Amino acid sequence: MSNRRIVLAERPSGLVHGQTVRVEEAAVPEPGPNEALVRVRFLSIDPTIRTWMDDAPGYLPPIGLGEVVRGGGIGEVVSSNSDRYTQGDLVFGMTGWQDYTLVDEGPASVQVIPAGIDPLLALNVFGPTGLTAYFGMTDVGRVKAGDTVVVSGAAGATGSMAGQIAAIKGAARVVGIAGTAQKCAWLVDELGFDAAVNYRSDDVAQALRAQCPQGIDLYFDNVGGAILDVCLGALALRGRIVLCGAISAYNERERPPGPRNLFNLIVKRARMEGFLVLDYLDRFPEAQLEIAGWLAEGRITHAEHVVDGLEHAPDALNLLFTGGNTGKVIVRL
Amino acid sequence: MSNRRIVLAERPSGLVHGQTVRVEEAAVPEPGPNEALVRVRFLSIDPTIRTWMDDAPGYLPPIGLGEVVRGGGIGEVVSSNSDRYTQGDLVFGMTGWQDYTLVDEGPASVQVIPAGIDPLLALNVFGPTGLTAYFGMTDVGRVKAGDTVVVSGAAGATGSMAGQIAAIKGAARVVGIAGTAQKCAWLVDELGFDAAVNYRSDDVAQALRAQCPQGIDLYFDNVGGAILDVCLGALALRGRIVLCGAISAYNERERPPGPRNLFNLIVKRARMEGFLVLDYLDRFPEAQLEIAGWLAEGRITHAEHVVDGLEHAPDALNLLFTGGNTGKVIVRL
Repeated sequence: MSNRRIVLAERPSGLVHGQTVRVEEAAVPEPGPNEALVRVRFLSIDPTIRTWMDDAPGYLPPIGLGEVVRGGGIGEVVSSNSDRYTQGDLVFGMTGWQDYTLVDEGPASVQVIPAGIDPLLALNVFGPTGLTAYFGMTDVGRVKAGDTVVVSGAAGATGSMAGQIAAIKGAARVVGIAGTAQKCAWLVDELGFDAAVNYRSDDVAQALRAQCPQGIDLYFDNVGGAILDVCLGALALRGRIVLCGAISAYNERERPPGPRNLFNLIVKRARMEGFLVLDYLDRFPEAQLEIAGWLAEGRITHAEHVVDGLEHAPDALNLLFTGGNTGKVIVRL
Repeated sequence: MSNRRIVLAERPSGLVHGQTVRVEEAAVPEPGPNEALVRVRFLSIDPTIRTWMDDAPGYLPPIGLGEVVRGGGIGEVVSSNSDRYTQGDLVFGMTGWQDYTLVDEGPASVQVIPAGIDPLLALNVFGPTGLTAYFGMTDVGRVKAGDTVVVSGAAGATGSMAGQIAAIKGAARVVGIAGTAQKCAWLVDELGFDAAVNYRSDDVAQALRAQCPQGIDLYFDNVGGAILDVCLGALALRGRIVLCGAISAYNERERPPGPRNLFNLIVKRARMEGFLVLDYLDRFPEAQLEIAGWLAEGRITHAEHVVDGLEHAPDALNLLFTGGNTGKVIVRL
């Protein structure tokens, strides 16, 4: 029995490829006093992992060369020297891309998932993904009744939740931007978006003018780049832009130039604000409770894109940037 | 007796030049019922006038070709058929670039300036310039005790007020960015800025790192472009950027690319917001009262750069973009 660990071998330029990481085999660690051994079962694959691979300042330090790739996940407690963890418990936390990890009782350690919660849901709608959509849409974007809302990366895990939360909170019109006809159909037919724009085949500026004739009150941005620029140019008076992510830039060697329409923030007296879900830790329970209610009422549709095998985690990460996924990307070990 | 009117002859590309405007002579208009005739005495020269000369959507419609150049000013009532205006009254409003204008009793008309107020002060610290600094710094930027504040265009009318208001409101450190050593010395020696950076001779990024070692809490942006980009990269956690103007771009044929460091708004959970002082009309009196108090206490230093002659208004406008002014640019007729 050994512990496979996917470590960062070199800093990627563009997508992650065969040389970016290597698989190391190590002994399964022994839990010390007040520690438990966790067998990792699921990995949460998130765009932000790609930013940690760069040697650039960010909200967390870069992953060091030779270190296990950082990432969230769910594991099962297989042995425990801690009163907090019982064998068989499912726990959520920063497991990293490996088969086993040790957890302790420190504040930055893992959380036990209440019995009966589907691990896929715990990673998706109840996890950082769904909570990012929740706090971005409500607290940062202050979505309100009557708003015209646009979401990019709309068929992704966060985008799909963000659009549905906007509608639940009373938005008059929710428009998603995605990259295939299938995704657009899913948004409208299954998730109840009012419209969807295919950025690969449509003229996004023209389509948004048609779909949002009064302008955009709230733009939830997962992608940055050209689409952010178009949405800046299409803002309504006192529009808000929630900067959640900028996946169009995460694989660029250099930061690309910013949007030309930035000055429109003045003309429209508009606000653009970035946020991180980590800042809302103490409010996770209230959000999860509200999301659970919506789920029980059948008001939330979700999808998980499950990839099997720890060794495929790098490919799973790339899916987020090539548009190969609908919903939450999860690696199942 | 005739009315000289400076009308827009063609849309400028870059700075205003000899072909951009032409001087027309017209008869002095006769006031009708409830109207008054105003002899224009002073013109407020503001960067935003340049944006109105472009055929581009904005917060006001473009100035039409053949129309008098739009702009604020102060005039003297020379004859009146209105109970609201008495001969000899000084009034402030959108007089335009001309010798005479008619005013009526409509809501968008002029305001009578209380007796005893110096017209130069009425255009500068008590006018839209000072009020822009006031509401931008307090309401949009929410300046607070302990903040590290950076102001660009700091030797201009709005920037110089913005920096002083920040200090009065308790900012721990106020750093100005300006374009000459004389302006920088004026900011520090006369206005009490803690430091000034000369963007023409200093490495702005390096200078701001040195002057703001904890990062920038509040950046009041009058210029956009490269300096905005540097400040985005130097933000402190939960930093705020007040977008007041973008004079670096107003003379560009096309909108230049935006800042590469925009993504830092996410990393720093930061906010960027645009505003227009016109939205604060109903709060002008409270702001003017507070500014008057500071002025009486000697806490506000101001400067006016007066250019004589209506025919020199275009050159006066260009000063704002070539950096030829310190303080408020005013044309005296």
